[in-house]
Amino acid sequence: MTGIDLNADLGETTAGNPVADDAAMIALVSSANVACGFHAGDPHSISATARRAAERGVSLGAHVGYNDAPGFGRRFIDYDPAELADEVLYQIGALSALAAAHGATVSYVKPHGALYNAIVTHRKQAQAVIDGVRAFGDLPLMLLPGGAAMDLAEGRGMTVIREAFADRAYLPDGTLVSRREPGAVLHGTEEVLQRVRQVATTGAVTAIDGTVVPVDAQSVCVHGDSPGAVDMTRAIVEGLRADGIAIRSAVAAPATGTGPAAS
Amino acid sequence: MTGIDLNADLGETTAGNPVADDAAMIALVSSANVACGFHAGDPHSISATARRAAERGVSLGAHVGYNDAPGFGRRFIDYDPAELADEVLYQIGALSALAAAHGATVSYVKPHGALYNAIVTHRKQAQAVIDGVRAFGDLPLMLLPGGAAMDLAEGRGMTVIREAFADRAYLPDGTLVSRREPGAVLHGTEEVLQRVRQVATTGAVTAIDGTVVPVDAQSVCVHGDSPGAVDMTRAIVEGLRADGIAIRSAVAAPATGTGPAAS
Amino acid sequence: MTGIDLNADLGETTAGNPVADDAAMIALVSSANVACGFHAGDPHSISATARRAAERGVSLGAHVGYNDAPGFGRRFIDYDPAELADEVLYQIGALSALAAAHGATVSYVKPHGALYNAIVTHRKQAQAVIDGVRAFGDLPLMLLPGGAAMDLAEGRGMTVIREAFADRAYLPDGTLVSRREPGAVLHGTEEVLQRVRQVATTGAVTAIDGTVVPVDAQSVCVHGDSPGAVDMTRAIVEGLRADGIAIRSAVAAPATGTGPAAS
Amino acid sequence: MTGIDLNADLGETTAGNPVADDAAMIALVSSANVACGFHAGDPHSISATARRAAERGVSLGAHVGYNDAPGFGRRFIDYDPAELADEVLYQIGALSALAAAHGATVSYVKPHGALYNAIVTHRKQAQAVIDGVRAFGDLPLMLLPGGAAMDLAEGRGMTVIREAFADRAYLPDGTLVSRREPGAVLHGTEEVLQRVRQVATTGAVTAIDGTVVPVDAQSVCVHGDSPGAVDMTRAIVEGLRADGIAIRSAVAAPATGTGPAAS
Repeated sequence: MTGIDLNADLGETTAGNPVADDAAMIALVSSANVACGFHAGDPHSISATARRAAERGVSLGAHVGYNDAPGFGRRFIDYDPAELADEVLYQIGALSALAAAHGATVSYVKPHGALYNAIVTHRKQAQAVIDGVRAFGDLPLMLLPGGAAMDLAEGRGMTVIREAFADRAYLPDGTLVSRREPGAVLHGTEEVLQRVRQVATTGAVTAIDGTVVPVDAQSVCVHGDSPGAVDMTRAIVEGLRADGIAIRSAVAAPATGTGPAAS
Repeated sequence: MTGIDLNADLGETTAGNPVADDAAMIALVSSANVACGFHAGDPHSISATARRAAERGVSLGAHVGYNDAPGFGRRFIDYDPAELADEVLYQIGALSALAAAHGATVSYVKPHGALYNAIVTHRKQAQAVIDGVRAFGDLPLMLLPGGAAMDLAEGRGMTVIREAFADRAYLPDGTLVSRREPGAVLHGTEEVLQRVRQVATTGAVTAIDGTVVPVDAQSVCVHGDSPGAVDMTRAIVEGLRADGIAIRSAVAAPATGTGPAAS
Repeated sequence: MTGIDLNADLGETTAGNPVADDAAMIALVSSANVACGFHAGDPHSISATARRAAERGVSLGAHVGYNDAPGFGRRFIDYDPAELADEVLYQIGALSALAAAHGATVSYVKPHGALYNAIVTHRKQAQAVIDGVRAFGDLPLMLLPGGAAMDLAEGRGMTVIREAFADRAYLPDGTLVSRREPGAVLHGTEEVLQRVRQVATTGAVTAIDGTVVPVDAQSVCVHGDSPGAVDMTRAIVEGLRADGIAIRSAVAAPATGTGPAAS
Repeated sequence: MTGIDLNADLGETTAGNPVADDAAMIALVSSANVACGFHAGDPHSISATARRAAERGVSLGAHVGYNDAPGFGRRFIDYDPAELADEVLYQIGALSALAAAHGATVSYVKPHGALYNAIVTHRKQAQAVIDGVRAFGDLPLMLLPGGAAMDLAEGRGMTVIREAFADRAYLPDGTLVSRREPGAVLHGTEEVLQRVRQVATTGAVTAIDGTVVPVDAQSVCVHGDSPGAVDMTRAIVEGLRADGIAIRSAVAAPATGTGPAAS
C-alpha cells in the first residue's frame, strides 16, 4: 500500500502561550517534530506533547534548534561547531528523558529553522549536527534533500529521511522559493493536497515553472502554526485516505498506538 | 577503612566565564555536582566537566536548579510542582546524554541553591523534585539531613545521600547558620579540616554553641567558587589522607577511573 | 461627563508569536500596559505597540515584571529588593526610549502578574517597585486598591491609579476570588459590561456574595489575550458609549491622538 | 597637553559572577563601556558600575550587543535590521535610566563583540546600529576606524570616536590580526605601553610587519577581563603620566568627578 509520512512542528508552547493546536495536529500526523526548549518549548509543554504523541502512536522527533528563544531559532548564528554539537546532544537527551517518562522514545532528529537551512550549505554546522546526533545514538536525520548535511550524513552511513513541504513552492533545482518572493507559499487546499499526493505516489514535486523535480521524499511537512492549519491538515488526511494512501511514520513504527500510524 | 565523599559544585561556566577552577577541583573531590544549564552551565562547558569527571573516575551528580540563570538559581521561585518535576527530569536527561558521550553516567541528583533550601520545608516542591528524579530512574538524592525532601524520599524508598558542609556553621538543630549572621562561614583551613574529619569519623558536626549534632552525613560539600577554594580543598584532601581517611564516592564506584575515588 | 479608563495588557508578542491582537485592542482602550521585555515582549514588538498607542493617543504604561520569560512573570520570585528596584528602573528606561522614538512618553507604571500580586502584601518588594519607579521620575503607579504597595506609594506622595477588573469575581474584602475557585472569572458580556458600568458610575464593585464594595477605581482592566477578547472589549466600549460614559485615560491626556481618549 | 582616552569593557557581571574587577578598572580608565544586559550584565550590576563611573567622572558608554547571553555576544547573528535597531535603542534607554539615577548620562555608544566586528562590513547591520543610536539621540559612536559603520555614521554627520587596541597586533591595512593567528595578542607591558604612547602622540600604530598605519584614534581599548588586566592597565596609566600624556575622555567631560578624566 502506498504511504507517506506527515510531520509537523509541535511542542513549541512557551511560557504558557501556544503556537499551534498540538492536540488536534497530533491526531492527524504520523510524526511530531517536538521542540526541545532551545528555540521554543518548555519542559512541561514538551512533556505534554510527547505524552500525546505516545498515546497516539505518533513518531517523536527531536526538533533541535539554535539556543535563541528571542528569535525562535529563525536567525542564523555563527556557532563554534563543537558548541553546536553539544547543544544538539543536550536537546536530544532532554527530550528523550521527557519522552521516556511516557514510554516513548525519540525516533529521529529534525533541525529547526535557521539551523535546518544553514546546514544545506554550511558544512561545519552540518557536521556538528551529525556529531551531536551520533553522540546520542543511531537516529535518522530528517533533512531537505540535497546539500551538505545530507551528503555528510549519508557518507557517515546514517539513515536520512528526505523531506518535502506541503505548502511551499519549489525552484527547478529542488530548493524552495524564498518566502520573500511572491507565490512562495501555496494556500489552496486542493493545490496542497495535490502536492502531497504527488510526493506520496511519485516521490516528486512540480516546481514553480512546471518542471517535475524528483526529491524522493519519505516525509511531507505540514504546518500547524497558522490559522486554518488544522483544517488544512484534516483535508490532506481525508484526501489521502480517499485515495488509499496510508499516512505512516517514515521510521520503524512504535510498538503501540492508536493514531494514524496504526490505521 | 574510614572514608568520606567530598563533593563540589562544578560545570557552572556560562558564556565562557568560569565560576570555579573545574579541572583543579575534579582532581581533588570524589563527586562532582554538575550544573545542567538552568541555573548555570552551557552544554559545551557541562560536557567538558563531565568528561573530566569520567577521566578521573569521579561520580557525576546532576545539579538541578530553577530555570533562573539571571539569579544563578539562588532565588526561591513559586513553581507549579508539575512544571518543576518536568524541569528536573529535563535537566537530568540533558546531562545524562552529555555524560554518556564520555562513557559516564549520572550517579545521583543534588538540587541547587534556592531549590536545595526550599525543599527542606516546601513539601510540594520536594515532591516535585522526587517525581522528576523518579521519572528518570532509580537515582540517589543528595540532601540536607532532616526536612521534607528527606522524609518524602525515604518514604518512597529512595537512596538518600546525607550531606554536611565543610565551611558552614551549624545551629544546634542541625540547620545552617544563615549567611546573614556573623560566623556563618568558617574560613580557617584547620577549622574546616577538623569539621570534615569529624563528619568522616563520627558522622556528627559541632554546632556554633558547642553542641555535637549527629547528622550522619556520607558526603561533605566543599566550595570551588571562592578565591583560595582549590588550596583549601587540597589542604582538606591532604589532611584526610594523612589521617588515613579515604576520599570516596558515596555512590557505587564507577567501573574505571584514576582519581581519588580509586585511591 | 462620567468617564472611566479602560486598560489592557499588550506588547507581549515574543519571538514573533502574538499573545493578543494588539492593533485591535489599542483601537478600543484608553491605556495600554506595554510589556518591557522581562516577562514578555521584545524590543521590536514593544516598539510597534508603542507606536500604535502613540498614533491613537492611548496612554502608555510600563508593564514591569519579574525577569522570568519562561514563567511569563506569573511565578513569585524571592528577589533581593535592591535588584528588583534596578530591574523596574531598567524596564521603564527601555520602554521609554522605544516610546520616545514615536513621540510618546511612559505615563504610568503597572506591575505585572506575580509582581502585581506580591506587592499587595510583600512590603519589601512593594518598596522596591516604588524605589525603581521614583528613580525614573514622577510617574503614577497602577495598583490593586488596598495593600502594601498602595499604602507605601500614597505615603510617599505618589499618584496612584486604583484598578478594578472587568471580568473577575470579588470577595467582600475587595480582593479577587482566586482563579482556582469556581466562578472566579466572569464570562457573560452583559455581566462584564454591568461591572464596568458600576465602577464608572459608582466606583464600586459587587462582590460574589452580593456585598457592594467601594474600590474607588479610576481604571478597569480588560483582557486582550483570550479568544473573544476583542469582541468582549468592543461590546464594553459600545455599551459604555451608549450610556454616555467616556472612555478616557486615568492620567493627563497626551497632547495628540485620535483614539478613544480623545472622544 | 597631549592626551588619550582609555576605555574598557565593564559592567559584565552576570548572575553575581564578575568578569572583571570593575572597581579597580574604573579608577584607571577615562571611559567605561558598560554592558546593557543583552550580551552580559544585569540591572543591579550595571547600576553599580554606572554609579562608580559617575563618582569617578568617567565617561559612560552604552556597550550594546546582540541578545545572546549564552554566547556573550561573541557570535554573529543574522538579525532583521529593524529588530536590531530596536534592540540597540532598548539597551541605550535601559542603561540611560540606570545611569540617570546616579546623576550620570550615557555619553557614547560602543557595539560589542560580534556586532562590533560585523558592522565593519555588514552595511545593513551597521545602518541598524546607527538607526538605533539616532533614535535615542545625538550620541557619538565608538568604532574601529574604516569600514561600513564609520562610513555610514560620518555620512550621517554623527560624531565618531576612532578606537585603537592596546594589546592587539595590526595588519598593514589597519585591521586586527585574527585571534586564531600567532602573535595576535601583545602580552608584554612595555610593548603595550609603547602602543598606547604611539597612538596618543602620533595617532598611528605599527603593524605586525613594521608598517606604520595612521588610524587617527582618539581612544584606546584596554582589557579588564584577563588575569593581570588591572596591573597591566595600571602600568599603562603610570607610563603615560610619566610621559606627561593626559588620560581623558574622548567626549565632552562630565560636569563633576574626581577620576582620571579630571586629572
